[in-house]
Amino acid sequence: MPLLVVGSVAIDNVETPQARRDGLLGGSATHFSYAASFFTPVKLVSVVGGDWPAEHTELLRRRGIDVSGIQVVPDGKSFRWTGRYEPNMNDRQTLEIELDVFGNFEPLLPEPFCRTPYMFLANAAPTTQLKVLDQVPGCRLVVADTMELWIQTTHTDLMQLFQRIDGLIINDSEAKMLADTENVVLAGHRVREMGPRFVVIKKGENGAMFFSEHETYVMPAFPTEKVIDPTGAGDSFAGGMMGYLAQHDNFDPETLKTAMAYGILVASFNVEGFGLERMQQITRDDIEDRMAAYRKMLSF
Amino acid sequence: MPLLVVGSVAIDNVETPQARRDGLLGGSATHFSYAASFFTPVKLVSVVGGDWPAEHTELLRRRGIDVSGIQVVPDGKSFRWTGRYEPNMNDRQTLEIELDVFGNFEPLLPEPFCRTPYMFLANAAPTTQLKVLDQVPGCRLVVADTMELWIQTTHTDLMQLFQRIDGLIINDSEAKMLADTENVVLAGHRVREMGPRFVVIKKGENGAMFFSEHETYVMPAFPTEKVIDPTGAGDSFAGGMMGYLAQHDNFDPETLKTAMAYGILVASFNVEGFGLERMQQITRDDIEDRMAAYRKMLSF
Repeated sequence: MPLLVVGSVAIDNVETPQARRDGLLGGSATHFSYAASFFTPVKLVSVVGGDWPAEHTELLRRRGIDVSGIQVVPDGKSFRWTGRYEPNMNDRQTLEIELDVFGNFEPLLPEPFCRTPYMFLANAAPTTQLKVLDQVPGCRLVVADTMELWIQTTHTDLMQLFQRIDGLIINDSEAKMLADTENVVLAGHRVREMGPRFVVIKKGENGAMFFSEHETYVMPAFPTEKVIDPTGAGDSFAGGMMGYLAQHDNFDPETLKTAMAYGILVASFNVEGFGLERMQQITRDDIEDRMAAYRKMLSF
Repeated sequence: MPLLVVGSVAIDNVETPQARRDGLLGGSATHFSYAASFFTPVKLVSVVGGDWPAEHTELLRRRGIDVSGIQVVPDGKSFRWTGRYEPNMNDRQTLEIELDVFGNFEPLLPEPFCRTPYMFLANAAPTTQLKVLDQVPGCRLVVADTMELWIQTTHTDLMQLFQRIDGLIINDSEAKMLADTENVVLAGHRVREMGPRFVVIKKGENGAMFFSEHETYVMPAFPTEKVIDPTGAGDSFAGGMMGYLAQHDNFDPETLKTAMAYGILVASFNVEGFGLERMQQITRDDIEDRMAAYRKMLSF
């Protein structure tokens, strides 16, 4: 089944203790769509400026991603982000952020996109996410992401969004902030009670947790010593997970769990290179090989 | 098979954001032995002062733990520790520490203890741990713990110890310090190359990782929202793990993995009450029930 993602595409400059790379193809919708494209056809809705390098769009198109929903604002500037990772490769500082055209993003979906059965609302203002929701009334499964800025500044809008989505995928610090507790398990339950039928909490190198009415579980990350660039790991995770659900057109508890494992594994490849470098080297077979190792690791 | 542990028994005062408890029975060898006693007969070697409450020893004795190796220094004072947990319940400050008799501990094992086939050297000065090792020459499996103090101040002794032990169980910050890297996977491999045949890295609420020549894996913690007092979680983990190995008199890769899962589950009970409170309420059946839930959680 087709999968729609609405969110940012960006130009990233990334600095790690080992290296720095400028002009990388980044953004949450980018990492999400590339990851999901291993599993299912993806439609991407975003916005760029006149300065957007054509080769970035071309890379996504060659991958089979439907890029017809990328609006171009000819006299605008594309979203740019510059960040630096701490030696632990988990914490990072944003050195520079220029939202530009993404700051005024008014997503207007191409008509055929409005009947997509699976949708991911990548990080954006909750009001923007709600406007997208209105355009896809028959969507079977809607999952969203958010960030600390929206939790702090647009709480009411966010609570409205939570009433209308099926799933929420957020990271642990966001969950703790939303639920006002330092206990991540308690946070997961509390956030679920705010509306979403299920909540996934991403814990970076420590994997991810799942919360629904009847299930609570945690799955570890795939252990790797090769962490080159964590940027986009969370969006790759969401892309792998949603891609698997859309591929199987199913989101029963068992499928959700397997999907989460695929999300974890796709993210484990994403961090092995800058931007999309590592993702461009792998195939679905590589993901399946890692899945076999992961299943073996978790069985005893 | 019998299991010997040499380490501290102590009087703990514990403060959490919710409550404070004074005069708890604590110490690494205490938490280790209680956890291990669900699986196998345990012999405990430690030292206390004349102020040691008789009921603490009695609690361990009633549990079937052989306490004949607890030396009493009548004019000495018992080891006391006072700590305060941060709201995240992972980080803690030591508010007061009085090593007293444990600071001058010269373990002299009762003769029958010297033929124990399984042994855990709880945290102590590496020279002390080496002296214990000399007294149990035919031990089949020796596993040790250490702490940042010894890594920083007695590095040479520690490296000597590493040449003579089978396994090392340490926490993530210690592993990173030992290996001089922020990447915990890399740290595990590097520490293993320092001597031990296997290394287990404890990650608190994020579970534990295992490293041997041919295997690297991670197992998540059992998710609980009831974290009352994390003191002794790491030692309970080691006690559950070693207890299971001693019970089965086996430490092949498959048994080690199952043992690690038991360690994780015993530790998950330990944190559900102050000191040994929760541990005293449970039976092996409770551990097996949680194991069934844990296996279900990890299968998909």
